[in-house]
Amino acid sequence: MNIPDIPSIHDAALAVALDTAIANKTKPPGSLGMLEAMAQQIGLIQRTALPHIEQPAILVFAGDHGVTAEGVSAYPQSVTWQMVENFLAGGAAINVFARQNGCALHVVDAGVNHDFGPRAGLMDRKVAPGTRNFAQEPAMSAAQCAQAMQHGADLVAGLPGNVLGFGEMGIGNTTSATAIMHAITQLPIEQCAGAGTGLDTDGILHKQTVVKQAVARHAAQTPLQILATFGGFEIAMMAGAMLAAAERRMVLLIDGFIVTSALLVVARLQPAILDYCVFSHCSDEHGHRQMLAHLGGRPLLQLGLRLGEGTGSALALPLLHGAVNFLREMATFDSAAVSQKSS
Amino acid sequence: MNIPDIPSIHDAALAVALDTAIANKTKPPGSLGMLEAMAQQIGLIQRTALPHIEQPAILVFAGDHGVTAEGVSAYPQSVTWQMVENFLAGGAAINVFARQNGCALHVVDAGVNHDFGPRAGLMDRKVAPGTRNFAQEPAMSAAQCAQAMQHGADLVAGLPGNVLGFGEMGIGNTTSATAIMHAITQLPIEQCAGAGTGLDTDGILHKQTVVKQAVARHAAQTPLQILATFGGFEIAMMAGAMLAAAERRMVLLIDGFIVTSALLVVARLQPAILDYCVFSHCSDEHGHRQMLAHLGGRPLLQLGLRLGEGTGSALALPLLHGAVNFLREMATFDSAAVSQKSS
Repeated sequence: MNIPDIPSIHDAALAVALDTAIANKTKPPGSLGMLEAMAQQIGLIQRTALPHIEQPAILVFAGDHGVTAEGVSAYPQSVTWQMVENFLAGGAAINVFARQNGCALHVVDAGVNHDFGPRAGLMDRKVAPGTRNFAQEPAMSAAQCAQAMQHGADLVAGLPGNVLGFGEMGIGNTTSATAIMHAITQLPIEQCAGAGTGLDTDGILHKQTVVKQAVARHAAQTPLQILATFGGFEIAMMAGAMLAAAERRMVLLIDGFIVTSALLVVARLQPAILDYCVFSHCSDEHGHRQMLAHLGGRPLLQLGLRLGEGTGSALALPLLHGAVNFLREMATFDSAAVSQKSS
Repeated sequence: MNIPDIPSIHDAALAVALDTAIANKTKPPGSLGMLEAMAQQIGLIQRTALPHIEQPAILVFAGDHGVTAEGVSAYPQSVTWQMVENFLAGGAAINVFARQNGCALHVVDAGVNHDFGPRAGLMDRKVAPGTRNFAQEPAMSAAQCAQAMQHGADLVAGLPGNVLGFGEMGIGNTTSATAIMHAITQLPIEQCAGAGTGLDTDGILHKQTVVKQAVARHAAQTPLQILATFGGFEIAMMAGAMLAAAERRMVLLIDGFIVTSALLVVARLQPAILDYCVFSHCSDEHGHRQMLAHLGGRPLLQLGLRLGEGTGSALALPLLHGAVNFLREMATFDSAAVSQKSS
């Protein structure tokens, strides 16, 4: 995939116009906290002092991971395809929250180890039926990684809206994200590896060992080498989708540990992509808080979620609407004839 | 007002039924964090393993405060009635967020120093045109306080839904809430007094002095004496409304500093009322965090809001829907044929 140049959203004149519009609303200055910062950000992304949210969508990418052969997950690999079926039937948490909050949901087979056949509602972008076991060999070839990223970018080109959330499903993918996080941030593996879907202490220690040995085995250096060596197809596809979405000046809704691992990679390639990101939730997955600190991201929600699928983003979406709506709909001190601050 | 007995929502058998229903959903155990605790709580409040949210509403109570004569607010007293007009015209932040999230909004004149005349959309429960200046004398008589609480209770009796949020507007009411907080919790006034709508450091120090001298002047001991001595009519009316709403087994959505000051009073009278409370937001108003700690309340949102009006509750409402909806709509491991955790 050809990596696009992502420009900063910085625009001094528009920033002043947005500040003024926000300051004129009938409320004490700054009293809408993070919603004010988000209104400003979305305005700059959309290059307007009157931003709006149109047809928000979440792409959920599913992929399997060869590293599950090392016993790194509390669930069997078959749960990946079973949960894809659950997505298609509308019964997973992300279905419920996306439906509730008026968010379109698209399910992508990025590389699940299962033959779904042609299925309504499933976008087949399977690169291979699961990655190779990165404890033994690179998870994917450079060509597979590029293909996955290109699929992600192409998917974004077909979407109508201006807000895009990312979600994922893949048994074993917290192990993949842990290795990526460690390789990109250089933080100790102990600060990166967590319980995933529910490992006990021994399980977490085992996962740390697997990642440590794998990192020692491979010579991945560049962000794309790291992504190909440790990534899942769903992670690489998200990385490509994020770049394409920022290039289209969409708002990127960043969810938990796995989604943020994809962002770690692309932010190393194109740092200004962070201007386009809204961090929806700080996951309870160990390591996510450190990822956010590394990126300077301030999460909207801290609800103790650790489910993945994009659930944090679906739940945070009403706050984005709130940010845009107060800017669009609130009266000004003048229009409502409300007295301003005395001092 | 006759203080109702508020029973605990504790029900061991139903709690087990709810735990089981939550555990059977297609997700790792506990992975929906605070939404799981909230689903459990709402089920217990509604006495069902299949809770629902029906016609949620926010009552916004407005009142004026004699203590504004002491120069304790950054805004003139007239802003109270001007903002009531703004509520009626639909241009305030609470209008925007309530509209967005499908929440009915009712505006109550609890004691504004302004003659609105008969107005569509304004519920006239004016006890008096503002409280007296509690720096000099009790803010209200015991009879006025009881009348305000009774009005609040009566308003709740006329509402159709099962979720009730509380909001307020009243220039000077953080000073009132500060005095109540200090008197109820015995925390030092320095830990209770904050910037309100936007005082500077000198302004906050002056506010502290006003509250200190007022507390020394009055002999308020019981919760109701404290409420009458330092309260606003809007705070007393919220207190009565909270008791009536809990008696009806509604979910009480608790917003920021002022709303929580009313809860401090009624929780001293009827501690089990806390079982019915969802804390929507931790305000940036100094003191609110300590109020929540005092009550053992864990807020859903921490967005740096300090606007009042019930805005935190309107913004948190989709999370309540999320809690109920995942319980009602998600598939179970059995129904979706998804494998359970290996260990």
